[in-house]
Amino acid sequence: MKVAIYLPDEKTQAWWVEMLEELLPGWTIEPIDAVSDPAEITYGVVWRPRPGDLARFPNLRAIVSIGAGIDHVLDDPDLPRDVPIIRTVGRDLTQRMREYVALHVLRHHRDMPRQLQAQAERDWHSIVVPVAPNRVVGVLGLGNLGAAAARTLAGLGFDTRGWARTEKEIDGVTTFAGADGLPAFLSGCEILVNLLPLTEETRGILDADLLGQLAEGACVINCARGPHLVDDDLLAALESGQIKQATLDVFHQEPLPGDHAFWSHPGITVTPHVASRIDAGTGARIIAENLKSFETTGTCADLADASRGY
Amino acid sequence: MKVAIYLPDEKTQAWWVEMLEELLPGWTIEPIDAVSDPAEITYGVVWRPRPGDLARFPNLRAIVSIGAGIDHVLDDPDLPRDVPIIRTVGRDLTQRMREYVALHVLRHHRDMPRQLQAQAERDWHSIVVPVAPNRVVGVLGLGNLGAAAARTLAGLGFDTRGWARTEKEIDGVTTFAGADGLPAFLSGCEILVNLLPLTEETRGILDADLLGQLAEGACVINCARGPHLVDDDLLAALESGQIKQATLDVFHQEPLPGDHAFWSHPGITVTPHVASRIDAGTGARIIAENLKSFETTGTCADLADASRGY
Ligand SMILES: NC(=O)c1ccc[n+]([C@@H]2O[C@H](COP(=O)([O-])OP(=O)(O)OC[C@H]3O[C@@H](n4cnc5c(N)ncnc54)[C@H](OP(=O)(O)O)[C@@H]3O)[C@@H](O)[C@H]2O)c1
Ligand SMILES: NC(=O)c1ccc[n+]([C@@H]2O[C@H](COP(=O)([O-])OP(=O)(O)OC[C@H]3O[C@@H](n4cnc5c(N)ncnc54)[C@H](OP(=O)(O)O)[C@@H]3O)[C@@H](O)[C@H]2O)c1
Repeated sequence: MKVAIYLPDEKTQAWWVEMLEELLPGWTIEPIDAVSDPAEITYGVVWRPRPGDLARFPNLRAIVSIGAGIDHVLDDPDLPRDVPIIRTVGRDLTQRMREYVALHVLRHHRDMPRQLQAQAERDWHSIVVPVAPNRVVGVLGLGNLGAAAARTLAGLGFDTRGWARTEKEIDGVTTFAGADGLPAFLSGCEILVNLLPLTEETRGILDADLLGQLAEGACVINCARGPHLVDDDLLAALESGQIKQATLDVFHQEPLPGDHAFWSHPGITVTPHVASRIDAGTGARIIAENLKSFETTGTCADLADASRGY
Repeated sequence: MKVAIYLPDEKTQAWWVEMLEELLPGWTIEPIDAVSDPAEITYGVVWRPRPGDLARFPNLRAIVSIGAGIDHVLDDPDLPRDVPIIRTVGRDLTQRMREYVALHVLRHHRDMPRQLQAQAERDWHSIVVPVAPNRVVGVLGLGNLGAAAARTLAGLGFDTRGWARTEKEIDGVTTFAGADGLPAFLSGCEILVNLLPLTEETRGILDADLLGQLAEGACVINCARGPHLVDDDLLAALESGQIKQATLDVFHQEPLPGDHAFWSHPGITVTPHVASRIDAGTGARIIAENLKSFETTGTCADLADASRGY
């Protein structure tokens, strides 16, 4: 079995080659630009591949996304559309995302930005907020990450809602489904967390219309993908007071350009795509297991559905 | 039944008089400075009473602390020592403290202070931290609040420890007891939360010796009482790097004086005694229930043990 691998950072790519060689004895792992015979490549393992990268291999059996999202793979206009895509998820990814969501929902809930401002002014100013059971928080997307995040927020005591494409049942979480369920989900929602995959249907979903349906003065946390958000609509909603604060982990362009308005906006917290990542060692082990399973059985856990887009 | 009531803020005191009159029909509620006949007073309901305030009533059956701690009552050198003290605790108090502890442990865990600093410098700098199951957090005190906080931290996935005077069993929490158990509890502890009551034994417990036993670069959260902490020892430990960051909600003097070093210390987050409070309506209802129960049965929930000091 021959695997072609691509990551934008060369040193990281070299590390992955070494790691997968160790975890997949008998397999050949080649950096995508050093592949000797493209026809021999049966698997591609990629993070943000360049357009055309994967079209070069006529005998691909599966493509592995080094990450939970597959949007960076589907972005390639020349992608061979009939090749199955395997996502990379795992316990650590879910754990880190739970931490990120809990942290930032609590930060907004207890208004830490204003509390830190008071400290800077040596102002003994107590901010009175409702107790979590009287605070409505909503999670967009109830997959691996969204469902875990919603469960965690419910466990912290929040009045928790969740929204997905299909009906779900999650203990302690009020769930809503599909376009029809969205208005009721948004109405009265005070802290919104986005954990949708980026697809044709969800691109730009965080726009003026959606933000306007939240409770007045709501907070928004985007830890899915930058293009979910219409940047200018968020800036306008912050300006009008419809949105009080936002925490953004993902951006249209990453790293976020140095001159972007988000960096210094008093209502925006910027984190550099750190909400969750699988540490490389764990990720490589998961990928090796998935490849072995796919090679033997023709399927594996974490198979994405390219027709759905996630 | 006659109740004398005292709170330092006159407007708040007037509100409490009104509220308790409504909740305790048939009882008389008098502001402590307007008591007509001290011999008729059978209950005192107080927050931070002045020395001598309660010694004036020879027929007191019980004293109610408007709060979870009774240190502010025991502080009075003239306090009638044989009168039972009733604490005021409740679901909301516990809920708010869980939120505060989860928020600030997560803030330190994910190093939000440094992340915000990076944002201020428009620096796309990702801070890599261990996943919560590889992070040791410890809670000092496993009473109403400490046990709930420890359970919440374990629920978030942290490697959680707890310390109390007597042995405890809490799911998912490694517990330690008494002075003998303290060194093992502290060793390797990376984020420490203080939820002890203030007693003769716990005053100044957060000193150079204790801070020195934590993991190097540990973080400390004090949400119990100011005098638990030796301020200068914390400043020295921050200076040496033994402690990386601290979040303090309580202080020797409150409001924290405007010229105190804590306000502008880059390693210290100051919050103005807001970790948890019972909202007044809920507190008044709990107190009315406790008073009725005590009057009828001679006892009630939340009776403190003055000999223990909490
Ligand atoms: N910032 C970070 O560090 C980071 C790290 C990892 C992942 N992520 C992002 O997080 C996303 C979610 O990951 P995941 O593993 O939880 O994904 P997942 O398991 O595929 O779950 C996706 C969820 O979104 C719902 N959904 C999809 N399209 C929808 C639509 N049009 N309307 C309503 N709901 C829709 C799905 O509904 P059904 O269940 O009904 O199908 C599902 O519940 C990833 O795609 C990635 O973009 C970010
Ligand atoms: N910052 C705020 O907003 C805020 C709000 C409310 C309360 N508080 C503070 O939080 C404190 C704790 O409240 P609580 O209701 O949880 O108190 P609690 O129910 O009385 O519990 C006290 C805990 O501390 C332990 N303890 C006492 N003395 C000890 C010692 N010498 N060594 C080891 N452990 C000792 C007790 O051990 P045992 O169980 O073995 O007896 C118990 O587990 C209050 O006293 C108050 O100071 C702060």
